[in-house]
This record gives sequence, C-alpha cells and structure tokens, in this order.
Amino acid sequence: MDAEIIAVGTELVLGQVTNTNGPLLARTLSAMDIKAPHQVTVMDDQEQIVAAINSARQRASLIFVCGGLGPTTDDVTLKSTAIALGTGLTTDDQHWEWIKETFKARRIKMLPDNIQQARYLTGGSPLANPVGLALGSWYEHDGLQLVVLPGPPAEFRAMLEKSVKPRLVAKYGTGRRISSRTLNFLGRPETQLMAEIEAATAQFSDMTVTSYVQPSQIQVRINVYDLPLAQANDLLEKVTAAILAVERPYFFGFGDKCTLVGEVVKLLTAQGKTITGAESLTGGLFQSTVCSVPGASAVFRGGFVTYAASAKERLLGIDPAVIAGHGVVSAQTAAQMAEKSRERLDADFGLSFTGVAGPDDLEGQPAGTVWLGLARRGQPSQTRELHLAAYLGRQEIRNLSVQYGLQMAFRALQG
Amino acid sequence: MDAEIIAVGTELVLGQVTNTNGPLLARTLSAMDIKAPHQVTVMDDQEQIVAAINSARQRASLIFVCGGLGPTTDDVTLKSTAIALGTGLTTDDQHWEWIKETFKARRIKMLPDNIQQARYLTGGSPLANPVGLALGSWYEHDGLQLVVLPGPPAEFRAMLEKSVKPRLVAKYGTGRRISSRTLNFLGRPETQLMAEIEAATAQFSDMTVTSYVQPSQIQVRINVYDLPLAQANDLLEKVTAAILAVERPYFFGFGDKCTLVGEVVKLLTAQGKTITGAESLTGGLFQSTVCSVPGASAVFRGGFVTYAASAKERLLGIDPAVIAGHGVVSAQTAAQMAEKSRERLDADFGLSFTGVAGPDDLEGQPAGTVWLGLARRGQPSQTRELHLAAYLGRQEIRNLSVQYGLQMAFRALQG
Repeated sequence: MDAEIIAVGTELVLGQVTNTNGPLLARTLSAMDIKAPHQVTVMDDQEQIVAAINSARQRASLIFVCGGLGPTTDDVTLKSTAIALGTGLTTDDQHWEWIKETFKARRIKMLPDNIQQARYLTGGSPLANPVGLALGSWYEHDGLQLVVLPGPPAEFRAMLEKSVKPRLVAKYGTGRRISSRTLNFLGRPETQLMAEIEAATAQFSDMTVTSYVQPSQIQVRINVYDLPLAQANDLLEKVTAAILAVERPYFFGFGDKCTLVGEVVKLLTAQGKTITGAESLTGGLFQSTVCSVPGASAVFRGGFVTYAASAKERLLGIDPAVIAGHGVVSAQTAAQMAEKSRERLDADFGLSFTGVAGPDDLEGQPAGTVWLGLARRGQPSQTRELHLAAYLGRQEIRNLSVQYGLQMAFRALQG
Repeated sequence: MDAEIIAVGTELVLGQVTNTNGPLLARTLSAMDIKAPHQVTVMDDQEQIVAAINSARQRASLIFVCGGLGPTTDDVTLKSTAIALGTGLTTDDQHWEWIKETFKARRIKMLPDNIQQARYLTGGSPLANPVGLALGSWYEHDGLQLVVLPGPPAEFRAMLEKSVKPRLVAKYGTGRRISSRTLNFLGRPETQLMAEIEAATAQFSDMTVTSYVQPSQIQVRINVYDLPLAQANDLLEKVTAAILAVERPYFFGFGDKCTLVGEVVKLLTAQGKTITGAESLTGGLFQSTVCSVPGASAVFRGGFVTYAASAKERLLGIDPAVIAGHGVVSAQTAAQMAEKSRERLDADFGLSFTGVAGPDDLEGQPAGTVWLGLARRGQPSQTRELHLAAYLGRQEIRNLSVQYGLQMAFRALQG
C-alpha cells in the first residue's frame, strides 16, 4: 500500500518556508514500512489542490493533505479537499465553543472565519489539535484513507503523534515488523564503504543496509524485517559484527543522533580527562564544536586560536625557527602547536589544526592540505596529513579538518 | 510561463534529508517572476523520474530535475531524464580528464562509474560544477527547457549561481521587468520590522516589500515592477531612504549575499585595523565566523577561548577578584576579557562573550543571559547585556551572541 503526501502552501512553493512536515511524516511512515514514493507541493489554490488529490488517488490509497487550515481567505485546503472527495464539511459544535472561549480568555478579537477551524470532512471524523485551533480530518471511503493536517510545524507534529500515529498503528500495525540499528562512520568515501559493507553482509537475508551521508559522517542503517524480536536482535548483532569486522577503523558509534564530538566528550568525561586546542585554519571551529555539546565544561577549559604565525609565537611560544624551517603547514608546526597548547593549559590532550583552507595556496601547498597534531600527556605526539579536495571550498575543508581531528582524539581515547 | 521543480532522492522521500534545494531554487525563480506552482519529490527510480517529467511537461515549459547525479548504481537521474526526452548522453572528454586528475592528486581510487559524472544530455550543453564532480545539463527542444542539477546543497547552490542564473536572465530577462534591492537587518523582530516598514512605505506604488528570515539576519527585498530603469532606480532609492529613516540602527548592508561578519571584515580591512576575541559561552564561534571570510588574515591574527574561569585567569590574566566579586556573567568580566585579549595581541579591537548558553542556569542567571564586551584602542570599553529567549536553545543562543557581538564592532567601525 502506497501513501502520498501533498503539502499545501504558497509560502512553500515560493521557497519562503522550507517544508519540514513532509520529511517528519515520511520518517514516521517509513518506520511503519509505509512508503510515500511521490510527494507534491502546491499553492493555496483550489484548482491545484483538487488536481493533486485526484492525481494522488491514481497512485496511492493513503493520502495526506498538509497545511492551509488557518482562518483566512487564503486557507482553502479543507474546502478543496471536500470538493475533490465529493463530500461536504461538518462543524464540530463542541470544538467551536472551545475556540470561542479560548479567544475570550486571551482577550483577542476573533475572525468570523475562525469557525472554519472547527470543521472537518463530512463522513469522516475530526482529529484533535493539542496545540492549536484547527481540527484535522480523517476520512475513509471505498478503500481510500485521506488525512488532513494543519501546517504549523508544532501543530502538525503534535497531531501526528497524538491522533494520527495511533490510528495508523491500529490500521496497519499488523503489517511488516522492522527492527533497525544505525552505525556512524567517518573517513571512508560512501561508495567504497557501501561496496565493502555489501560484500561483508551478502550472506544475510531478511535485512537491508542503507546509507545516508551527513555533513560530518556517514550513517549506515541496518533494517531487519518480519522476524520475532529475539531473532531480529540476533540478526542485527550478527550483521553489525560482520560490518565492524571490516570497517571498525572508521566506526565511532551507534544511533541516529550520535556525533563524533559527542562520543569524544563522553569518553573524556568517563576517563576524567581534559582537552584543549590550537587552531590555525579552523579558527576556533574545533573548540566551538566541543562547546556545542552540553556538559563540555567538564572536559574543556579553553584554548587558542593562532591564525597568523605571529600569534603562534606570541600565544603559544612556538619556536620561530620551526616555522621558518618547516613552514606553518607542516608536521613540526602542528606537533608544536598541540604540545604547547596542552602544556599551557595543563590538559591531557592538545589538538592542533594548521593548513590551507583556500581559496589561495599557501607556502606552495594547495587548498585542502592540512596537518593535524595530537599531544598526549606522558606519551609522544602524533601528526596526520590530510589532502582534502580543494573544490570542497573553504568552509567544508575547515569542517572536515575538525572531524578528522576529533577522530584522532577518539582513537587515542579508545586506546 | 510556468516552471516545475522535480527533486529526486530516496533519502528525500524517506524524510532522512530535508529538501532545501527546492526552496532555494523557488526563491531564485520567484525573484525573476517565474512561478513553480507545482513541485514534486520522487525516489531514485527510473520509472518514477520518467513519469514525473512527462507529467511536468503538461504543466510547465521550464523543468528542473535536481539530485541523483552521483557515481553509484542508485543514481539514475541523468539516464532517466534522457529516456523521458528521447535523447542520449554525451561524455565531456575534457571534464572526464579533469575528474581523473582530481582523483590522482587526492590519491583516492576511482570507481568505473565516475565517468557518469562527466556526462550530459545529448543535444543539450553541460553545466560546470564549481565545487563538485558531476556536470549539470541544460537542454532545450521545441519550447521546452529542462535543467538537470546535482543534489548536494553546496554543488546545487554553486551551479545555480554560476551557470543557471545567467542563462535564465539571458532567456527570460525580457519578461516583466523587476528591479530589486535587498537590505539586511539584525536586532528587530520580523513582525515589528515589517509593520514599521509597511507604514514607512505606504505612500509608494508599483513596488512590494517582502521579508525573508535567515538564521543570522532578516533580509528585506524591495521589488519594483515594470518601470524604465532610471525610474525604477529612482524609486528604489526613495523606498530605501524611507526604510532607513526608521530602521537605520538595525541595518548593516545591501545585497542577498551580505553578512554582518563580511561587512565587519570589510570595514576593518579598509581602515587597516585588527580584531581579536576572548570567548566563553561561544567557545570559538566568533573567531571561527571571522575566519570563514576569505581574506580574514588581514584583520585577525588569533585569540582566546576561555571557557572556564581558570582559563580566563590563566590565558588572559583576568583578576580573580573581578570574577569572585561580579561573577563570570557580568559587565566587569566581559570588559576585562575584551581589554586583556586586545592588549595581549596588540589588536585595535577586542570582543568578548560571556554568558549562559544553557540548558542549565549559571550563577543564578537563566540561559540566554549574555554579556558582550568591546575594547577599543585608545577609547573606553563598551559592554552590552543580551536577554535571549532560553527556548531558542544552546546553539541558537551562541549564534545570536556572535551576531550581536559583530553588531557592536560594526557600529564602532562606522564611528
């Protein structure tokens, strides 16, 4: 059974607002193994809405019409949907009383058309709105389910959660069961990673592996279908082990919300250790990324931004002969930056970033050439050279430098 | 003439990725008075893509097909588009050589299918990709224009700007004439700003004023319609003057690409001055934002991240009695941080950030309480307190703190 999502809103079509309701609904459906392979956005326009619903009925038996339930003359979604379905609108008197009381209590003048927000599709049933005025509608007829939902994201989310999901579960809950697990990787091109994972998991059935490239990581999701829970978990374990047997060096954690910086802060906290940094091309982005994690103050006290060579000497006491002899983009400078920053703040780790963000070359090195340094208390320092693609641009070169620096720290913390 | 946008991507349909390319393209078209009233998202699936293009041709004469140009077997957009159009694919030999050289230089193994990324629609012309591997395509036949663009947002944006916009202007520039000007503001709620601008510009006709909220600023666009160029410019001048008569304190520059940090770096460069920073709650985000501007090295040498009180004392030499007496979230600490950072790097300006990013309170102050300090060579320091809404969350509180800090520097530089 296919679903289709129709988003209604002139502000969406003009690009003034980005549609986030659609992706949320798609994720919700996808978790129930309902696919919405075709999604449409149209204006607040009766003719367009009717045409979109008629067209969707040729492809799907579960249709969501989202947005345009406000009290102004622009909001024609409910009326248009009724026309497409050949039905009318019914007023929920109890809800209309509640709307009137709400306006009275807030001392706000009501619009005559606020009564629209107490209406739902005749022959269907109203869906409660826990955080807004407009009712939704759930309509079933002749094998078609059509659901009308409000556009404001908070209202959409609440109605989806409270009213729509329980009905979908009741209706489609007997379908396919899915268990899934997400693994996060850094440092392997997606195509190579997925080719290797495909080979490593070819022996398994009843499962799929999909990848999703995010700015700072590649997420790999294992989905297991139609198995009792214990067997599903067992299969997830086995597939995970098969993947990690090959890709362990690039793996850093489980879960959709897992980030490398979050894992590094977690490991530092657990081990009672602190980190600092000396940043040249990244200009503070590493330290700012660490501080984006709530609770970072347990592991990070402060650090240095040493963009110019003069600042490297002035703030860190880097030997000018090192810079003169090897250049700022060098293993030697990276190592000294890491060591001096660690010493000056008496931290357990010092991480340094020096390189060429571009657009111009530096010291004859192309944009994307980066040296990372990692100083560790009581252990020798490490350095690593990156050759990032110049075409990625200044910002992405800086972002990736930070992620690879975090990977050095992550590996050191794992011992 | 109507346009239609077809976004291709299984990750979009599943809601794993939110489509931001579509809104960007819609805004670009809308600025040229081209409407795309119907927009579609489909999976990486040949049958779906062909059906979507055939259906779009019944509604639109300018069709954009976006995403799915990668080198893996999932990426079927170009092939499917060729099938829908009844044409083939041509390899751009020069681009294919460049791809091979790029892989060689980066020491990464190439996939056989990387050659896909050097192909474009036969009978059309290739569109250069300034920041990625895959070419786009521009195809015209029998009154239809069809444009194929890559999915990664950085590539999409760059190709749109460099290759697509100039062609659209050349082709549709003779339609309804629109002259427009964008003004950028910070520090006024959108509804208030727009209500005031509406009142200030009520006397003018033949024009509209629209607003667009971006993370770091509010962009206000004045559009003037159907006037000869000289008159249009004259009207733009008059409307701009009327707006700035009311909103000058919040204004910082003209143009769609204008950013406050870009304006600050420009003013510093022009005045031959330098800036540094000492950051607590922002953790390096201010300095990293400055370094995101190409050419920042002329005005920024380095600075300090002093997250913990101990780092404020150790790296900057803040008097512990000041912190003990007034707290870290105080005008006195902010002023000392700014002054000491400026002195230690002998810079013309020192900007400091100290406050509560949340989620927890600090020193009895709620999340969103922030003190900014600005030290200036030869002039007294300034401080400013912000009360940002706690519900904005940690990241947005840090972002806005940086922007308001930049606003202090901007005002000081304007004298």
